[in-house]
Amino acid sequence: MDTDKILLDHGSGGKIAHRLIARTLLPAFDNPILDRLDDGAVLEMGGSRLAFSTDTFVVDPIFFPGGDIGELAVNGTVNDIAMCGASPLYLSAGLIIEEGFPMSDLEKILQSMGNAARKAGVSVVTGDTKVVPKGAADRIFINTSGVGLIPDGVAISGANARPGDQVILSGTMADHGITILTQREGMRFDADVRSDTAPLSRLTGTLVDRFGSAVHVLRDPTRGGVGTTLNEIAESSGAGIRIYEEKLPVRDAVAGICELLGFDPLYVANEGKMLIIVRPDVADAVLETVRADEYGRAACCIGEVISDHPGRVFMQTRIGGTRIVDMLAGQQLPRIC
Amino acid sequence: MDTDKILLDHGSGGKIAHRLIARTLLPAFDNPILDRLDDGAVLEMGGSRLAFSTDTFVVDPIFFPGGDIGELAVNGTVNDIAMCGASPLYLSAGLIIEEGFPMSDLEKILQSMGNAARKAGVSVVTGDTKVVPKGAADRIFINTSGVGLIPDGVAISGANARPGDQVILSGTMADHGITILTQREGMRFDADVRSDTAPLSRLTGTLVDRFGSAVHVLRDPTRGGVGTTLNEIAESSGAGIRIYEEKLPVRDAVAGICELLGFDPLYVANEGKMLIIVRPDVADAVLETVRADEYGRAACCIGEVISDHPGRVFMQTRIGGTRIVDMLAGQQLPRIC
Repeated sequence: MDTDKILLDHGSGGKIAHRLIARTLLPAFDNPILDRLDDGAVLEMGGSRLAFSTDTFVVDPIFFPGGDIGELAVNGTVNDIAMCGASPLYLSAGLIIEEGFPMSDLEKILQSMGNAARKAGVSVVTGDTKVVPKGAADRIFINTSGVGLIPDGVAISGANARPGDQVILSGTMADHGITILTQREGMRFDADVRSDTAPLSRLTGTLVDRFGSAVHVLRDPTRGGVGTTLNEIAESSGAGIRIYEEKLPVRDAVAGICELLGFDPLYVANEGKMLIIVRPDVADAVLETVRADEYGRAACCIGEVISDHPGRVFMQTRIGGTRIVDMLAGQQLPRIC
Repeated sequence: MDTDKILLDHGSGGKIAHRLIARTLLPAFDNPILDRLDDGAVLEMGGSRLAFSTDTFVVDPIFFPGGDIGELAVNGTVNDIAMCGASPLYLSAGLIIEEGFPMSDLEKILQSMGNAARKAGVSVVTGDTKVVPKGAADRIFINTSGVGLIPDGVAISGANARPGDQVILSGTMADHGITILTQREGMRFDADVRSDTAPLSRLTGTLVDRFGSAVHVLRDPTRGGVGTTLNEIAESSGAGIRIYEEKLPVRDAVAGICELLGFDPLYVANEGKMLIIVRPDVADAVLETVRADEYGRAACCIGEVISDHPGRVFMQTRIGGTRIVDMLAGQQLPRIC
């Protein structure tokens, strides 16, 4: 679908967003690093390899069970850098605040950014604050960008998935997206549903340390969910991916709400989970390592990379059939992160 | 003035903004690099020194004589990195776009970011696009962050101003701010007034190459203008600064509009100018180098660093008197960059 106006779908992380990126953004900035479309850019600078990433947070509501926009903004960029196999070190923070925003809310958000940064072992070293007149922005938007150092010998990219590799998911799907949705719509569920926002950098550091070049892909399935992220990996690597419906971890409460509202948890955003694609000989040891981490207790192997059907993702269903898992087409939920 | 709500003044770059930073932001992120409050952070990473900076652009209107929000966003961060004495190399771009924004305007803005990046010799290597529902943001906001490499032996900081140093301004004051203001208010002046947005990194590279550690401070006087920036330098260095009213360069058309509207050009934002504070023995050669650059033709020496009155800025007026140049108190113009 081509359009002369920007739609909510253009920010969804799905197909329409990918088309905007391919047709409008990449040509404007024409360069091979951006073209790679990993979570962060890998740069050679002064003899070291750095990861550099940016993310803007416009989540609504700004406070929600399990976190707030400040914690999300720190963890989001920390994770994007971690997904390059790098240790995140330094962050920037760029705030856009609406005139009239309560000072106490700003203090809470900054405090929570500071706490998240300490927990992830990063420092917020540079920042910028803009205030816009009432009505020109909805409360507060936060951009974080960050840099990290990539250890020697680490080569992680969506392009590196190889047939035979095992696909591990570090925990349950859809917790963040469903939390935001139910909060925003003022729905009351008895179920305890909370965002999974968390820093994954310590765990990725351990994986990279312990398994080195046997770790091929790290990717956090945020906007567009696991389904869209797997499609991105299939596309960049030119390999196929097969997953098993019965192995996909979803908390009962989240699964129930998804069913009730008609959402497929495969496409709902996560904020503290990652896909880990590894050489088959280390898969068991990787899974054990992930499960030993506080943010990986519910990890499981959900599928494998295959040589058939290059660039496509398939799911073997519970009843034994096979269906194509496509990229999310448009918008499932706006302002989810 | 303390308040329980965020005011436009908190984003002004003036006194109230400085108080918000000192009381709320610095304590939350508690670390010595941020505390330095230079235009960018200087980081030691992998044996090299990097400059890292972020800036968010919310300028209104988004297209104006001399540039647009895209060009401004690239030049702004390029300049913040350049003001650390670094060569800017890589930028990120984080877009917040309002639903319904015209695709053709987005294309124009991205094209102009791409052109500005090529002109400044930087690559946009990572990005993020968020779309928010109609009414949740005013058209488009752009964050850029960036990294650059600092050559050995370069030590530039607002803290490094020393008594005896000469203060050079690279060109006329207030062009950007007055352009935005007159455009926004729909004022019609016959005068040709245009934004001075420009990348200053080639010129700073030449200065640092040629004069090394004799260059003590580089700072671009954006929000808050030359007056506020000089106060920041006086404050960080603990030195005094004296400037001469008759030496301050202002284009006639801009001076006329300032007088008409009651603005002091000393406090109006610039986007393609810098303050250069250097050891006195190289001042003439620096001035000659700056004037030889396309963005420094109107450069002049506007004052000197003094040992009296630590932390204060004084101006010798045209009629021979002396007045204190204070930091801008609140907001002169909202959404200027």
